Amino acid sequence: PHVPYSQKRYSEEMMLQRSQDFYTLMNDRRSVRFISPDPVPREVINNVIRTAGTCTAPSGAHTEPWTFIVVSDPEMKHQIRLIVEEEEEVNYRHRMGEKWVHDLAKLRTNWIKEYLDVAPFLVLIFKQTHGILPNGKKKTHYYNEISVSISCGILLAALQNAGLVTVTTTPLNCGPQLRLLLRRPANEKLLMLLPVGYPASDATVPDLKRKPLDDIMVYI
Amino acid sequence: PHVPYSQKRYSEEMMLQRSQDFYTLMNDRRSVRFISPDPVPREVINNVIRTAGTCTAPSGAHTEPWTFIVVSDPEMKHQIRLIVEEEEEVNYRHRMGEKWVHDLAKLRTNWIKEYLDVAPFLVLIFKQTHGILPNGKKKTHYYNEISVSISCGILLAALQNAGLVTVTTTPLNCGPQLRLLLRRPANEKLLMLLPVGYPASDATVPDLKRKPLDDIMVYI
Ligand SMILES: Cc1cc2nc3c(=O)[nH]c(=O)nc-3n(C[C@H](O)[C@H](O)[C@H](O)COP(=O)(O)O)c2cc1C
Ligand SMILES: Cc1cc2nc3c(=O)[nH]c(=O)nc-3n(C[C@H](O)[C@H](O)[C@H](O)COP(=O)(O)O)c2cc1C
Repeated sequence: PHVPYSQKRYSEEMMLQRSQDFYTLMNDRRSVRFISPDPVPREVINNVIRTAGTCTAPSGAHTEPWTFIVVSDPEMKHQIRLIVEEEEEVNYRHRMGEKWVHDLAKLRTNWIKEYLDVAPFLVLIFKQTHGILPNGKKKTHYYNEISVSISCGILLAALQNAGLVTVTTTPLNCGPQLRLLLRRPANEKLLMLLPVGYPASDATVPDLKRKPLDDIMVYI
Repeated sequence: PHVPYSQKRYSEEMMLQRSQDFYTLMNDRRSVRFISPDPVPREVINNVIRTAGTCTAPSGAHTEPWTFIVVSDPEMKHQIRLIVEEEEEVNYRHRMGEKWVHDLAKLRTNWIKEYLDVAPFLVLIFKQTHGILPNGKKKTHYYNEISVSISCGILLAALQNAGLVTVTTTPLNCGPQLRLLLRRPANEKLLMLLPVGYPASDATVPDLKRKPLDDIMVYI
């Protein structure tokens, strides 16, 4: 069944103000690789995941093909770190190729990921490449990677809004091991790993230039 | 060079409040397929695209692999509609298969897309599968589809925050024709098409159930 939908309409001045304020909020977002060990209230993380995943992200044919694993247990965080660093070292030394490593040089990233031990929470986002129907058959998940990435964008907005930071990472080749470590079923594939917390007091970020609006937008 | 990064730290009560408020805001988001013809200030759209694309979305190795085409010209909107409806009819009748069409039945979507004429703005989001260096060589865009989808999630949040609605669509097989119509270069591929405006006064949405938080989140 279909139900009526309406939404509060703001005045034009109010829309402009709200869109400007949201821009200002999000404009401060950066990928932060130095995270403070200070604890973060779990209820805030619940609200962030609820925002990204339970009801606010669209999904292809409404399949909701995501699972968010939130890790705060120190031992589990350390196991994750061992897996990621081992694979990332191989990635940097062999798999990524000279060009990719060169492209990353300005970010000064490498395979040492202290934040995996230090951040109060690690959020691992799995995409469900298919679902399982009550009769055991596969349920197709259309556009699952795009849907989960959209949900991740909303998650980044929710973190920023709460004053928390993260760095979006896609740990190459770590998916299968992390899936086993976290006991996720075979239809789930790791898409992203986000360490979450406050920025460390001495955090730094690369001084990147961003493209101006005119380079990325065309009006017709 | 790297520069210091800090962020305003909210009190724990304030974080909770902010994360709750953002959840409430985003919880009202729905995919709306009935859009009002009422005009929307262009400056608001600028702010929304600026939020999603110029500076607030992360991207793999900072490649910013996106182009946002904003169409308000009625003739161009109509050309887009003709292309999309023609392809979508074939999609529904032949390409998608009985199962997919059946999965979509509850949404009552079909190939008639009146909103493509009616919505004041159509936003077409292209992913750049690679960039072009000053010397004419290809510049690799790592994870371009994931990056653009994340940016789209931030765009959806920015629209919702401004009181606007959209429906995320991925018009199957329309990419090449729309790319030519909009004169985009060959390294750009259509990822999403979003009609943007206020909801129509008689808009309805499917009465969907969403998974509860416990089904999508695991704490460890
Ligand atoms: C990647 C993706 C592709 C989608 N493609 C279409 C589409 O082509 N046509 C359409 O009407 N809706 C499309 N949708 C919208 C979904 O059907 C919708 O998000 C889902 O049914 C949940 O409803 P809600 O967004 O109102 O919560 C798409 C959503 C996503 C995330
Ligand atoms: C899909 C994707 C994958 C990324 N993977 C990594 C990663 O594995 N490691 C890392 O340190 N940063 C990663 N990043 C972060 C980017 O390097 C960062 O977003 C970009 O340099 C822009 O910087 P900013 O987020 O501070 O604006 C990734 C970002 C995206 C969108």
